[in-house]
Amino acid sequence: MSVGANYVPRRGWFHSWLDFDVDQVREDLDDLVELGLDHIRIFPLWELVQPNPGLIRESALMDVRTLACEASERGLGVSVDVLQGHLSSFDFLPAWTRTWHASNIFTDPEVIEAESRLMTAFAQCLSDVPGATGLSVGNEIVQFAAHRHPEAAPLTTAQAASWLTAMFEAMRSQWPHGRHTFSYDDDVFFDPTHPFTPDLIAMGDLVTVHSWVFGTVGRHHGKDHPRLALFARYLLEVAHAWAPGKPLWLQEIGAPLTYVSQDEVPDFVRKTLSHASCVPQNRMVTWWCSANVSPSLTRFPEVEYGLGLFDADGHLTPAGRALRDWVKHPEVAPAASGANALAIPAPTDPGARRAVSPDGALFDSWATAIETGTPLTLEVQ
Amino acid sequence: MSVGANYVPRRGWFHSWLDFDVDQVREDLDDLVELGLDHIRIFPLWELVQPNPGLIRESALMDVRTLACEASERGLGVSVDVLQGHLSSFDFLPAWTRTWHASNIFTDPEVIEAESRLMTAFAQCLSDVPGATGLSVGNEIVQFAAHRHPEAAPLTTAQAASWLTAMFEAMRSQWPHGRHTFSYDDDVFFDPTHPFTPDLIAMGDLVTVHSWVFGTVGRHHGKDHPRLALFARYLLEVAHAWAPGKPLWLQEIGAPLTYVSQDEVPDFVRKTLSHASCVPQNRMVTWWCSANVSPSLTRFPEVEYGLGLFDADGHLTPAGRALRDWVKHPEVAPAASGANALAIPAPTDPGARRAVSPDGALFDSWATAIETGTPLTLEVQ
Repeated sequence: MSVGANYVPRRGWFHSWLDFDVDQVREDLDDLVELGLDHIRIFPLWELVQPNPGLIRESALMDVRTLACEASERGLGVSVDVLQGHLSSFDFLPAWTRTWHASNIFTDPEVIEAESRLMTAFAQCLSDVPGATGLSVGNEIVQFAAHRHPEAAPLTTAQAASWLTAMFEAMRSQWPHGRHTFSYDDDVFFDPTHPFTPDLIAMGDLVTVHSWVFGTVGRHHGKDHPRLALFARYLLEVAHAWAPGKPLWLQEIGAPLTYVSQDEVPDFVRKTLSHASCVPQNRMVTWWCSANVSPSLTRFPEVEYGLGLFDADGHLTPAGRALRDWVKHPEVAPAASGANALAIPAPTDPGARRAVSPDGALFDSWATAIETGTPLTLEVQ
Repeated sequence: MSVGANYVPRRGWFHSWLDFDVDQVREDLDDLVELGLDHIRIFPLWELVQPNPGLIRESALMDVRTLACEASERGLGVSVDVLQGHLSSFDFLPAWTRTWHASNIFTDPEVIEAESRLMTAFAQCLSDVPGATGLSVGNEIVQFAAHRHPEAAPLTTAQAASWLTAMFEAMRSQWPHGRHTFSYDDDVFFDPTHPFTPDLIAMGDLVTVHSWVFGTVGRHHGKDHPRLALFARYLLEVAHAWAPGKPLWLQEIGAPLTYVSQDEVPDFVRKTLSHASCVPQNRMVTWWCSANVSPSLTRFPEVEYGLGLFDADGHLTPAGRALRDWVKHPEVAPAASGANALAIPAPTDPGARRAVSPDGALFDSWATAIETGTPLTLEVQ
């Protein structure tokens, strides 16, 4: 199983794209290589790369390519998220989609055309970089269609599917051999009102999972509950049940100090990785994130200042040490035998998302089975 | 009377800040000097200079300073708008004021503190540039408090005044000898619901006016109506009546092809300048804008592609020729004698803005007086 990091530049966060500094990038990447990691996921900001639908900045693409080449030269695989979109509570939609130009980014034909051109441009720019593995449509872009979003775009599932199809066509047309994905938070799995339904996860070449214990699972079980370290595995098992035959990617996993006490972090990291790696279909784990947000940057949610493998001064954090140690000496939890499975509803079943929610009976049975030494797979009947 | 241009970079519009190119800037400035202009107004984008409240990018400030120095070396005065904010239908509020971080940019104490620091940083960066004359709070920043704005911030006039006071304090603390202004569209003069009331215009060292005939005056009188060329003068006269004793600045004036036919542009330019220059308190006219928006950039309102003194290929436009010719051979319309004045309500009078609206009797009387050869001043009784 490949282990890597979501690359958050240590100095300047993603605003460092505005002052791209290859020396700083090299330093950051060297640090990650030293931990034993083998890939990174990177995040250009949409509004900087395409500040107008008609302007895809060549220099911005070149900065991304330079970063990808530097990573590649260090033996790191690189996946690039295109539409950011959303990062650590901040939304970076371009001015041409907002206020006087307010547009539904999933249904407006002009916007879709511009987004497709951006996908194509990234694919052309990166497909020949040896370490580059593929693109993602964008980081948790589906948040912009969630009812909980303050400016949610109204959307049907048919429209969501049609939009995703267009994005994948654009990526694959220019980079047919890339492994392209799309990325979503667990709303897609658990929020019954979300227009991006679980059947759509199978559109990616790998099926991704973002595991954040500050969601329902943390609120339901409480801080430091032992089941929090099972959550990433649970998401992977659910993803496998809903998209059988597809390889999986635990694309985001982090140890938020609001739900995992500082002292418990090493244990949480170890157990999470041990469980995530026992799911046979899981190919990759990508830790969120490489570096803490610097305290000099304000208005981030408190949790974002403590998610890094390195702190803002470049020192390894407890999570960083635990990840490094696990990579050196991986422990793998016992996998389910496959003989015994729990039934879950099909991804198109209207009740599916309530049924699999981690505050419900199904999660409870599944977790109990692991705790009692007889892990169960999940299976659509 | 000083005549200049609102500087819109010919290549890349304001997105060119992302790829600041001093050679391109020099070319643009040389073109303006050749027209006989003596000043420019420039527009950094807020979200690029201060992408996080805690991060004011030194390199962005340096780009602005470099532009100001280049202008200064050519004998051009330079005024810098700080909070953009709004430009040509696009809103550039930073991510840290939007969606999950939605804040009232006029009342949130954290935002005001960050804005004040930005004002201070610009003042420190520019006050020693010989040609730099001062700062403006931001381009038509008051639009974000107008009821017609899709995401209008709720605001009282007391809050508006308090916010403006804080901004002026920040600018003046670091640049006491600068001439600092604030900039607003004619909603402040004519929209009775606007929280920024006309008495606030006197806070600037010069009182600014933005004259756009595509507003009420154009809709009421129709395309190519001769009174459209009187509108800038009218705004100046109203501004003088509401802020007597203050020098005036016609900070934006343009010839939108939606209301001024291509053939009529030279006449409109000449007459507008002739009338604006006969108002004794008016010190400056700044044409909007130096260059047409390039057709390669999309989603701009149609009118923005034809407002330049130069077209996207660098050729002088009819407006550019007319402005150059007027600067060489200025004609000045007969001023009002001062003996006869029309009474207008005080700026704090609740009915003032309806009374002075250019679709009303007062404008009609004022314009008729000019047309019949006996121009009248406006005066608060």
